[in-house]
Amino acid sequence: MSVSDAPAAVDEARLWRRHMSLAEIGATAKGGVDRQALSEEEARARALLAEWASELGYAVSVDGISNLFIRREGTDPALAPVLTGSHIDSQPTGGKFDGAYGVLAGIEALQAMDEAGIETARPIETVAWLNEEGSRFAPGMMGSEAFAGLRPFDEIVAVADRGGTSVADDLPRAFAATPDAERRGIGFPVAAFVEAHIEQGPALERAGIPIGVVTGIQGVRRMRVRVTGEEAHAGTTPKSARRDALWEAARMVDALQRRIHRDDEHRFTVGMMEIRPNVPSVVAAEVLFSIDIRHPDSDTLARLEAEVDGICRNSLVACHVETWTIARAPSIWFDDGVVDTIESAAVDLELGNMRLFSGAGHDARQLSFVCPTGMIFVPCEKGISHNEAENASPADLADGARVLAETLVRLANG
Amino acid sequence: MSVSDAPAAVDEARLWRRHMSLAEIGATAKGGVDRQALSEEEARARALLAEWASELGYAVSVDGISNLFIRREGTDPALAPVLTGSHIDSQPTGGKFDGAYGVLAGIEALQAMDEAGIETARPIETVAWLNEEGSRFAPGMMGSEAFAGLRPFDEIVAVADRGGTSVADDLPRAFAATPDAERRGIGFPVAAFVEAHIEQGPALERAGIPIGVVTGIQGVRRMRVRVTGEEAHAGTTPKSARRDALWEAARMVDALQRRIHRDDEHRFTVGMMEIRPNVPSVVAAEVLFSIDIRHPDSDTLARLEAEVDGICRNSLVACHVETWTIARAPSIWFDDGVVDTIESAAVDLELGNMRLFSGAGHDARQLSFVCPTGMIFVPCEKGISHNEAENASPADLADGARVLAETLVRLANG
Repeated sequence: MSVSDAPAAVDEARLWRRHMSLAEIGATAKGGVDRQALSEEEARARALLAEWASELGYAVSVDGISNLFIRREGTDPALAPVLTGSHIDSQPTGGKFDGAYGVLAGIEALQAMDEAGIETARPIETVAWLNEEGSRFAPGMMGSEAFAGLRPFDEIVAVADRGGTSVADDLPRAFAATPDAERRGIGFPVAAFVEAHIEQGPALERAGIPIGVVTGIQGVRRMRVRVTGEEAHAGTTPKSARRDALWEAARMVDALQRRIHRDDEHRFTVGMMEIRPNVPSVVAAEVLFSIDIRHPDSDTLARLEAEVDGICRNSLVACHVETWTIARAPSIWFDDGVVDTIESAAVDLELGNMRLFSGAGHDARQLSFVCPTGMIFVPCEKGISHNEAENASPADLADGARVLAETLVRLANG
Repeated sequence: MSVSDAPAAVDEARLWRRHMSLAEIGATAKGGVDRQALSEEEARARALLAEWASELGYAVSVDGISNLFIRREGTDPALAPVLTGSHIDSQPTGGKFDGAYGVLAGIEALQAMDEAGIETARPIETVAWLNEEGSRFAPGMMGSEAFAGLRPFDEIVAVADRGGTSVADDLPRAFAATPDAERRGIGFPVAAFVEAHIEQGPALERAGIPIGVVTGIQGVRRMRVRVTGEEAHAGTTPKSARRDALWEAARMVDALQRRIHRDDEHRFTVGMMEIRPNVPSVVAAEVLFSIDIRHPDSDTLARLEAEVDGICRNSLVACHVETWTIARAPSIWFDDGVVDTIESAAVDLELGNMRLFSGAGHDARQLSFVCPTGMIFVPCEKGISHNEAENASPADLADGARVLAETLVRLANG
């Protein structure tokens, strides 16, 4: 199939400059970003996106949960748009490219179409979904969940951060960042969704291949374990009289790692632990810790979840233990039509490509329930992500944006 | 030896009421107190002590580190005073009696002497030492360390809490709480120091004995371990590529508990763990945890400290590990004369008593380096302390105050 003029108009230097400008907002000393959902920094990033969009003549809109849309009109405005995009919120010590790339590649693709003089039948919108990361307000994927109707609005806005501030409390900050944006309802018909993203894993770099054609997203279980013991004085309480919640939790984390985290196909993480009272001279009364389990096979995930319960049921030191699951996401497979379109765009652009399965969750999971969906991965340095050292090459980012631009043109005219 | 009229004038109900009044300041929902050093709550507690002292006609003074003194004059004001007291700061989820008892028993003893018409040659001062607990500004014992000249003033006031607020920043709050108090220098000659305290352990209650004559304080090592791994994405980073600082720390805590915490004579506690970034979907980059080791034998303590280093030296998952010691306190033994005075006061008052060694650290450790020092323990319910459920009986508290009053009279006239 012949390639449109859009990919050739993708400007590697311009795309890189936008990454660097966006990364200044919430920049950390170690070269990463701290731009958590609904923070002041995230609001400033929203304003910058809206400024770029306005300069390019695109309409900016926000829905009721503060997803931000940048629309390039189609020749038939009545047709459902093709959507692309990702998120601009980050982990507290996140990188410059996770999420940001999908949004900036989306803007670059639209601008490239303009410069190539391409019209599409369908409108194309580049979206920044609210709170993908879920580090401040957990769990994440809030904007795409709301858009796809997978979680009630009232439940989402009631979620509070550790300081007790709720999503509802801080939503006005997001709206205030783009005062001229049109307001629209949450959820509307979409012809297709394509999300570009850094791989966040080492496969593409190891293979020396610039384009990942993503076939699906691996399932995840998010669990919590609460261990309740008894507060006691570190100097006076004999071992036999202690119910040390921190020792018990530490023992469990080690046991879980040894038994659940069998090999590289299993992904098992305890990344968060909250300890009460968390002072050196007091035996801990309570520990709450998180569990994140991922595996491509949904049946295996269900079995691992049951194993966690079994391992945590036994307390060595008479602590009380509760386990519960806060999110159960099965593995999903993307739409064959979108996957094929991405793959053929890469092939026609003569860019090396391979199919792969995503280890990380993305907003594309949620969209896959309401429209044909696919993803494009580009390599990131050493596969490092969720880390201030996250890096990607300007050339790889531009190649991904070329595949995205061509894919969007084909979907919007298909 | 004949007993003075002071013990008989100790008023059980009044002493209990003062405990309950003080416990209202910083009261927690579960019946404990949160009155950390240099907090608003601790300042209000200071003001209440000064108010009681003024009502009773005692002079109130504060030294440069905000130790608070309440002075009952002697017939020879030029003589070095006898000191008694403890602290009014608490753990974040502390009890009503830890520290508070020693201060309130001191005030009760002074008032009982007044009511019994007793004069003493030496002045007697009841002191509330700054920041014994060390939960907010670590390590604790700041006031008594400064008073005894064991730690330079500049070093103490530079200590900051987790929010970055230093002791120097918040000292003005303490001074503002007692605006009429005379200001004095840090450290002055003291004839003797006697500290009354709840036992914070089960020995007296188990034995059914109301008075503990404390012979010394068990030694302690306070250490820190920092485990540094690498931040990584929970969904995409294979096990073989992870350097998970939280798993490593959990494994160490379990190994340390199994190997160091051999029996009831060894006291080993990991009570604090700070994790970075501490979010569910990110493999932890860094964990800092505390170690508190206590044992009556100082040589054993030194050996255990070396064992900790050995256990923490081995990292399973290629993390970088540092260990260091922040406080090394050998076991100390109190002054024979003071211990004998306390014991004979209890015997003469016909109160059951036993000698015991303190598992917990107290300000009396610091004072023991500059003057003859001793301690009086009273039972606390089930030995529970550093816990909102901490409790003691009004009768036991009053008996301890009687022994204290008689001891102070004898020391101040001796």
